[in-house]
Amino acid sequence: MSACPVAATAPAALADAPLPVLGHDVRVPLVTGGEVPYAALDYAASAPALRRVWDDVAAYAPYYGSVHRGAGYLSQLSTDLFESSRADVAAFLGCRPADQVVFTRSTTDSLNLLAAVVPAGTRVFVFETEHHASLLPWERREDVEVTYLDAPRTPGQAVRTLEEALAAREPYGPALVCVTGASNVTGELWPVRELAAAAHAHGARIVLDAAQLAPHHPVDVTELDVDWVAFSGHKLYAPFGAGVLAGRADWLQAGEPYLAGGGASRKVARRDGGGVDVEWHDTAARHEAGSPNVIGVYAIAAACKALTEAGFERLVEREQRLVEAVRAGLAEVPGVKVLSLFGDDAPRVGVISFVVEGWNSSHFAAALSAEYGIGVRDGLFCAHPLVRTLLGDESVEPGECGAPEAGPSLNALRVSFGAGTPDEHVERFVTAVGELVRDGARWSYRTEAGRCVPV
Amino acid sequence: MSACPVAATAPAALADAPLPVLGHDVRVPLVTGGEVPYAALDYAASAPALRRVWDDVAAYAPYYGSVHRGAGYLSQLSTDLFESSRADVAAFLGCRPADQVVFTRSTTDSLNLLAAVVPAGTRVFVFETEHHASLLPWERREDVEVTYLDAPRTPGQAVRTLEEALAAREPYGPALVCVTGASNVTGELWPVRELAAAAHAHGARIVLDAAQLAPHHPVDVTELDVDWVAFSGHKLYAPFGAGVLAGRADWLQAGEPYLAGGGASRKVARRDGGGVDVEWHDTAARHEAGSPNVIGVYAIAAACKALTEAGFERLVEREQRLVEAVRAGLAEVPGVKVLSLFGDDAPRVGVISFVVEGWNSSHFAAALSAEYGIGVRDGLFCAHPLVRTLLGDESVEPGECGAPEAGPSLNALRVSFGAGTPDEHVERFVTAVGELVRDGARWSYRTEAGRCVPV
Repeated sequence: MSACPVAATAPAALADAPLPVLGHDVRVPLVTGGEVPYAALDYAASAPALRRVWDDVAAYAPYYGSVHRGAGYLSQLSTDLFESSRADVAAFLGCRPADQVVFTRSTTDSLNLLAAVVPAGTRVFVFETEHHASLLPWERREDVEVTYLDAPRTPGQAVRTLEEALAAREPYGPALVCVTGASNVTGELWPVRELAAAAHAHGARIVLDAAQLAPHHPVDVTELDVDWVAFSGHKLYAPFGAGVLAGRADWLQAGEPYLAGGGASRKVARRDGGGVDVEWHDTAARHEAGSPNVIGVYAIAAACKALTEAGFERLVEREQRLVEAVRAGLAEVPGVKVLSLFGDDAPRVGVISFVVEGWNSSHFAAALSAEYGIGVRDGLFCAHPLVRTLLGDESVEPGECGAPEAGPSLNALRVSFGAGTPDEHVERFVTAVGELVRDGARWSYRTEAGRCVPV
Repeated sequence: MSACPVAATAPAALADAPLPVLGHDVRVPLVTGGEVPYAALDYAASAPALRRVWDDVAAYAPYYGSVHRGAGYLSQLSTDLFESSRADVAAFLGCRPADQVVFTRSTTDSLNLLAAVVPAGTRVFVFETEHHASLLPWERREDVEVTYLDAPRTPGQAVRTLEEALAAREPYGPALVCVTGASNVTGELWPVRELAAAAHAHGARIVLDAAQLAPHHPVDVTELDVDWVAFSGHKLYAPFGAGVLAGRADWLQAGEPYLAGGGASRKVARRDGGGVDVEWHDTAARHEAGSPNVIGVYAIAAACKALTEAGFERLVEREQRLVEAVRAGLAEVPGVKVLSLFGDDAPRVGVISFVVEGWNSSHFAAALSAEYGIGVRDGLFCAHPLVRTLLGDESVEPGECGAPEAGPSLNALRVSFGAGTPDEHVERFVTAVGELVRDGARWSYRTEAGRCVPV
């Protein structure tokens, strides 16, 4: 074994082939007999690792070492790898020279970190349509006031709603807007550039929740003119426990360190008369106390490079073809209603939620899994206010599975896919939805701990 | 590929052989020419992955899927794996039936989490000898008062100091003691059981920082009678970004959720008149918002099982032999001073810090790396007050490397090792220390950004 890890070369991808991912050859049993290749259609929750990411991690793993203060060869190599990963992520995001890239554990963690450093007195504006990770961190600050904005029904209305709210704020002081780039429920793209312009025109800052956008679309912080961006490795084909918050350094430098501990502290000394004096770092290290997740961070950098080198625009085109196939297929099935804020023509990523008339969504999802080997998600997708708004009813609890659903469901189904999804998975999904609606489930299911499971 | 991952079987270990780890065959170049196998002697900062841990992670990785709400086969499998990992960790730690195991990112994160849920008005007692991760989180709470205790010089003195401080607290209200199990500087074991008894006798609770203990000694929460324990995967041969806080559920259930987001929230609804109502979980999920680091958690569980199955007592015996070899070797070298709180006879793990008369520690560490392929650490080890106390001087800054050190150094060296360390590494280390002290470095070094590097 030589002294330097050699990053694996990404296999040459065919022009319209999915990128190789782990698990593509996993076969799962069906309740109706036999096995099929597993169709992972829950990318919006968590995506499989790109083969290239896994290979890079595997190539590095023997060279893993403590970072920053270690004097040994592998510590120096690991430190270089960790810090060059930061630079790779900054390049992937099109960061400005003075931006900081802080490694966190996830988008949720990133937004909680930003919420912790928002200056006192800031007004935060957030649409009710956000994921809970974008919706909930702000109100925990007692010295920050949060304004929740109603769900817009067009991108233009989103911009107008924001502008009006920002203009009406009183006092006209510091403000922050938090918005998703692509909805984790509808997959629809939000008008980020226009919202950023509106925010800045009104003296506000803006943070982009790119958890669902970054895996599906190039994100350029400079071009979008957003102040911060947050995303997770595990949705970006790098499921090793790391996430990113990148953007303006000033609030991050001025805020209290996210965690207290080693790495974030430059000097610690006992104070005469009790207590300790701490001098904190003001670089990204300020918010990265504790030993960093070097493998998780390197995996994110590997994913960023893999997507870029594969040709992100080509991946977008391919995914759009799959989106259209799913939408066209669902449109043919009677009783299927696709959830949408912005309507049929809205640009969207490979995340589509729907309900099926007369079906409990959990029952439908269980049948897709048990009878077709397809993994989707049912529920409210950690965006309760949005899903309730889209379903148009707040009062109906999901019934027992197996029993026909009376009236609107409180749960929905979500199918989601990305760079690793073969055509066959979405074709099987569309066929399965049609067959289940037409013929019903072939197996019996019962409710267990709130979920439907095969009998 | 079949439908269930098969955990790799641990290779049969020879009675006195180290456990197989990644990187054991990595060779590194020497400035003096040639290559040698890298001697990773910085386990106290971060340990290499056990081969068994890596193999288990690699066997699982193709089956990775979103956990908890995913309806697909791999989501269910991953959820089972995630929750059974929690049970494995609970078993490894000897948890009580009602204890909660919360997955965090590291010991630092675990202790910051506990600090966030400490009831208002609690008095926290912590020795100045703690790692910054144990020392600093408490004072961030404005409604918690922290008492820093002077460094004891015997285990008995530690217990008496704590008892006196607890007895003298006024008012005699709720209190928490935070103490390390094994010092990250001296490797010395702290009298955890006795400190726990003292804490409880005085109506206080106690949290054990087991970051340096758990990789080297069985930790049994019930037997030690500690209320919580915290440790990191990356020091326990599972460097995949996860950590653990385990113990009493009540404070965890009553405290604010650590992060706001999905997973921690059971129900979210907009409130008439503005704001949102959130119903939070009160299980471990309360503090695990965001998609969990399934691979990191599974890696920790794999490490726990690997250590148990290898025979932890045998590993302890073997490590003690290495400890004695290092201590005996260092004792032979003139001018080497081993740092100790509790004296020569104190039981300790494979973590030994020392200074070398006339040497800047960074210079010495650089020479060990560049001329011998040995990775150690120099500095203050994120335990500044302790190292300053041990060095006995607070005023001397380290000089330029290459120049003889005048007077006491502010930096120390630390050598640390564990279950994966072959005898040859510590033998080479002892020989190298002797040669460097006797003959001096063979190469020239210069100071660059505060570190010594070969010219």
